[in-house]
Amino acid sequence: MPLGERAGDKSESRYCGVETEFNDDMPHVLAFNLSHGSFDFVIAPLMDPAYRPSLMQKDSGVSGVPPFAGSDLVLSPSQWSSHVVGKVSSWIDLDSEDEILRCDSETTLKQEIAWASHLSLQACLLPVPKGKSCANYARCVNQILQGLSSMQLWLRIPLVKSDSETMDVNTDTSDDSWEIWNSFRLLCEHHSQLSVALDVLSSLPSVNSLGRWFGESIRAAIFSTECFLTNARGYPCLSKRHQKLVHGFFNHSIQIVLSGELVHSLPKINSHIAANDNDNNVDGVQKHPLRPYLDYVGYLYQRMDPLPEQERFEIGYRDYLQSPLQPLMDNLEAQTYETFEKDTMKYIQYQRAICKALQDRVPDDKASSITTVLMVVGAGRGPLVRASLQAAEETGRKLKVYAVEKNPNAVVTLHSLVKLEGWENIVTIISCDMRYWDAPEKADILVSELLGSFGDNELSPECLDGAQRLLKDDGISIPSSYTSFIQPVTASKLYNDVKSHKDIAHFETAYVVKLHNIARLAPPQPVFTFDHPNNSTDKSNNRYTKLQFGITSDTGSAMIHGFAGYFDSTLYKEVHLGIEPSTSTPNMFSWFPIFFPLRTPITLSPGASLEVHFWRCCSPTKVWYEWCVASPSSSPIHNTNGRSYWVGL
Amino acid sequence: MPLGERAGDKSESRYCGVETEFNDDMPHVLAFNLSHGSFDFVIAPLMDPAYRPSLMQKDSGVSGVPPFAGSDLVLSPSQWSSHVVGKVSSWIDLDSEDEILRCDSETTLKQEIAWASHLSLQACLLPVPKGKSCANYARCVNQILQGLSSMQLWLRIPLVKSDSETMDVNTDTSDDSWEIWNSFRLLCEHHSQLSVALDVLSSLPSVNSLGRWFGESIRAAIFSTECFLTNARGYPCLSKRHQKLVHGFFNHSIQIVLSGELVHSLPKINSHIAANDNDNNVDGVQKHPLRPYLDYVGYLYQRMDPLPEQERFEIGYRDYLQSPLQPLMDNLEAQTYETFEKDTMKYIQYQRAICKALQDRVPDDKASSITTVLMVVGAGRGPLVRASLQAAEETGRKLKVYAVEKNPNAVVTLHSLVKLEGWENIVTIISCDMRYWDAPEKADILVSELLGSFGDNELSPECLDGAQRLLKDDGISIPSSYTSFIQPVTASKLYNDVKSHKDIAHFETAYVVKLHNIARLAPPQPVFTFDHPNNSTDKSNNRYTKLQFGITSDTGSAMIHGFAGYFDSTLYKEVHLGIEPSTSTPNMFSWFPIFFPLRTPITLSPGASLEVHFWRCCSPTKVWYEWCVASPSSSPIHNTNGRSYWVGL
Repeated sequence: MPLGERAGDKSESRYCGVETEFNDDMPHVLAFNLSHGSFDFVIAPLMDPAYRPSLMQKDSGVSGVPPFAGSDLVLSPSQWSSHVVGKVSSWIDLDSEDEILRCDSETTLKQEIAWASHLSLQACLLPVPKGKSCANYARCVNQILQGLSSMQLWLRIPLVKSDSETMDVNTDTSDDSWEIWNSFRLLCEHHSQLSVALDVLSSLPSVNSLGRWFGESIRAAIFSTECFLTNARGYPCLSKRHQKLVHGFFNHSIQIVLSGELVHSLPKINSHIAANDNDNNVDGVQKHPLRPYLDYVGYLYQRMDPLPEQERFEIGYRDYLQSPLQPLMDNLEAQTYETFEKDTMKYIQYQRAICKALQDRVPDDKASSITTVLMVVGAGRGPLVRASLQAAEETGRKLKVYAVEKNPNAVVTLHSLVKLEGWENIVTIISCDMRYWDAPEKADILVSELLGSFGDNELSPECLDGAQRLLKDDGISIPSSYTSFIQPVTASKLYNDVKSHKDIAHFETAYVVKLHNIARLAPPQPVFTFDHPNNSTDKSNNRYTKLQFGITSDTGSAMIHGFAGYFDSTLYKEVHLGIEPSTSTPNMFSWFPIFFPLRTPITLSPGASLEVHFWRCCSPTKVWYEWCVASPSSSPIHNTNGRSYWVGL
Repeated sequence: MPLGERAGDKSESRYCGVETEFNDDMPHVLAFNLSHGSFDFVIAPLMDPAYRPSLMQKDSGVSGVPPFAGSDLVLSPSQWSSHVVGKVSSWIDLDSEDEILRCDSETTLKQEIAWASHLSLQACLLPVPKGKSCANYARCVNQILQGLSSMQLWLRIPLVKSDSETMDVNTDTSDDSWEIWNSFRLLCEHHSQLSVALDVLSSLPSVNSLGRWFGESIRAAIFSTECFLTNARGYPCLSKRHQKLVHGFFNHSIQIVLSGELVHSLPKINSHIAANDNDNNVDGVQKHPLRPYLDYVGYLYQRMDPLPEQERFEIGYRDYLQSPLQPLMDNLEAQTYETFEKDTMKYIQYQRAICKALQDRVPDDKASSITTVLMVVGAGRGPLVRASLQAAEETGRKLKVYAVEKNPNAVVTLHSLVKLEGWENIVTIISCDMRYWDAPEKADILVSELLGSFGDNELSPECLDGAQRLLKDDGISIPSSYTSFIQPVTASKLYNDVKSHKDIAHFETAYVVKLHNIARLAPPQPVFTFDHPNNSTDKSNNRYTKLQFGITSDTGSAMIHGFAGYFDSTLYKEVHLGIEPSTSTPNMFSWFPIFFPLRTPITLSPGASLEVHFWRCCSPTKVWYEWCVASPSSSPIHNTNGRSYWVGL
């Protein structure tokens, strides 16, 4: 039974599981935990924990039937697959010094996974690696992954990181479990069917250290009953930090699993009972000992705020890579215009900027005598024309508007709009590329909305440079400047999506994407800035920036899969517009961030700094970015000569 | 004029060049340095060093003709291409904080390389990077490399590494120029047209530090006249360490280039003259001031030992990747048998081992009464049959030989041999796979030559396990054991050859290769051992080994492109056979080493250690290796499930 209903949430985090011990009677295990216990699924051992292949062969002389829990005759395959996650024997240790144990472990692991596949299980839980060196375990899992149909393997990892300041420089003494996971998944080459099941303990690492996990593929968070505190009424509850973590898990489709024994003396039930103890009858009714914990998790789930409408609309776009628009080369379609025109907040900001510019341009006492010439360059279907006219009305200024648009289809709509609104005397429509229009007069104000997710990436600089001759020497450009930003991120999901194309070109392309399953490892830093009008002697739009990102040392080691990119724009004076997270304009949806991948992810040691270089390069026909990491180690320079990704002029 | 004749050496290191200063009169530069000076080529600036694009535009208003040295009219393209290496202006600094200098540098670099391409030069010398951060320089060179036809770019790097023990842990204080090269070529993605020109100075780094360069692509070594000492007769000469380095360069096809001014007061010429000073006339004959240095380099060249015949024969195989043989799946051809049979040293060792075994088996006093049964398993065309009969004759033992061979074509040859030699009464030929032969009696001695470059890689263990039932319980196997070895190497040439296939499969394949242009970074360590007969209870031929390689800290940073593999085999008691460098059998040519590549080369910090894992995996139909690096960072596991490279059973 799901934890509850939350508007807009259709994710797996509505389901809660329970970890059980080995029990040969699987129908009972399901009845007890699901029907009586209200859990949605169990994580149950598949094999008697006493089994050792080497002993079995010695005893019998021939290899017998491994002691599996139940078969596909006692539970139907659909019951197995919808309610059971297989728990691989936790005694296995493939990196033991003991060769017999190592071989027994490999045999058992392969037998159990093969059996789980036969039962069509959706996932198996792999036991925590026994030590820091887990190459043989990883080798064996990696071999298994190559032949696995659709089953997921969840590697159990305890949520541990020593934050001790006295930590030795010698990395051998680090007990950051993220490093074990990182090594394991690198050995398995980021296999998409390998994910993490986090074991949450009663003490939690630092916020920065925790944050890293949200860039990883986590499928479950296993909460031991030991994590829970006792509230005033004697019931289990979680600390504020644990609650916040649970919210994070809910928001990232991570399923909660409860584990362990009843360790709280509840007001009514005082017995100390194991999760799958069959004898727990109170007044003849079987009661699940972990029910109070489940109820509390359900309470946390139901207490969450519903998803805002915009967020609900965008759920389908989370971590979905899109190619950026090429509005200069291609003409946008009506649907695209319509979507962007709905972004009210954006046009409110534009209108505010135009109001201020009109007031600066024409003092109040001359409002009725001076007509301001305003050109909307890239007018599309007219939203900025409307904002300009509203600004004129609001400020009482007289306005003459030229609406310049290169897309002949949008021009058709513009003409209809002007007619419909009766703007014929104020608005002149020019069907022309702003870079080539021969204007009859110069403008006081040039308004454009040519910005992409990374600011200049839709060639606003080139377009506005071309239109600058339309502006009076003391004229105003709205926007007057814009700056792009990047920050390093862990984004294993995005990395895998890019990698799935099996070519270099996709690793040298920037994507527009609603970032969700990522970890932001350092605050964003500015990359390229453009000012309009451009009065400098150097008219080049080439740019080069070198950035140093410091990752705070309480984060621990971290993995960089690429860079999240944003922009902030000054429309006019203090009116800005942007998506840089620390200053982003609220309730605006026109831009998702941009993502620049790295061909080979880079692991940073604790406290290490990252040196990144970004170039904006221009040729007569196209504009492109190149990027690389130069420290702690050098990556190849990505997208040399714009070979994989460019924007056409 | 080449430095001299050396039997077998047809490499480029016979040619010696000279670095000159800017001179507009290129025909004179060539006449002076080549005709009069006896150099083979010049490294000459292509452009007036006073040129700055930004000044030129400011001065003239229009962009004029850049001040190049000469054109394709004063020298023919063939003269340019065979005698001139273009020297790019050394003032350029693409990583300067000064944006104007940076832009001027980029413009000039691109102009000069374009001009050099127009002249069909074979190579251009790029100036030394000005600082440790050279990402923008690398970005620009990388852009140029993408469009370059066949011209090589030589990046000038001074041969410097601080060996100071007090070196800070902070890597910023390292002045190891190899790190600059490593960063530059990683940014340029190991581009095959980018190589190094080493600037050799008067003091040299440690032997280990120098050794790294022999795994890199070095095209020239520039010796400043400052490097030279003065000998007893007043002439320039080099220190022992410099001489050894020059020999290393000669052996690796690296051209010597002389540079600088005459700094020795020679007995007859006392003037202090620049390399390209036109006024150096002694008694009316123009004499080249660097001639005494050139004569000394020629002397070093001519003094070298001629290449041994075997080495001369193998020159064509240097660093040439070959797929290992699959003698079990495929039948060898007569040519292959013939080549291997010529390896006299190998059969001498086998004969010595058989002699000892015969003597141990049959005491002298029973030599005439006991007949030893010896089986040659995998007899091929009979070389081990011959060695066995010779051993019997040498020791006076009576022998009965079974020659077992699965290749029906080789069996034909065997029959001819036995008839020709009159061995019919002693030798029985069995046309059968040794694993399946039903023998009429058991053998005292089982002799085989099934070893590959990596010992077990041609499935000797599986074949001999299959043949073990042919051997008496106390019987002897020759070989009685064998061990494989690996060591980490820098091998940029091999890496590039593997990479040129543009797939993962070639990075997950082992190659047989005559290793030459490599740096061995640590002594080889044993990997897998097999004993015959195998009397242990565990008959599995699966193996797993974890190795730690320490790179001595005076090496500095180092790059691992993969692993060189070898074997050593104990034929019988103290008679061994192998190619592991420290114990290799001399004058044997049957085996080149094996090379296991890494998909992504790994850079090691000074003094870092490398953790490597190797697996030998067996299935019913094939045997394969998997390998990975787990520290300092984890690589993917290579060749999972033998997907790219395997040996068929």
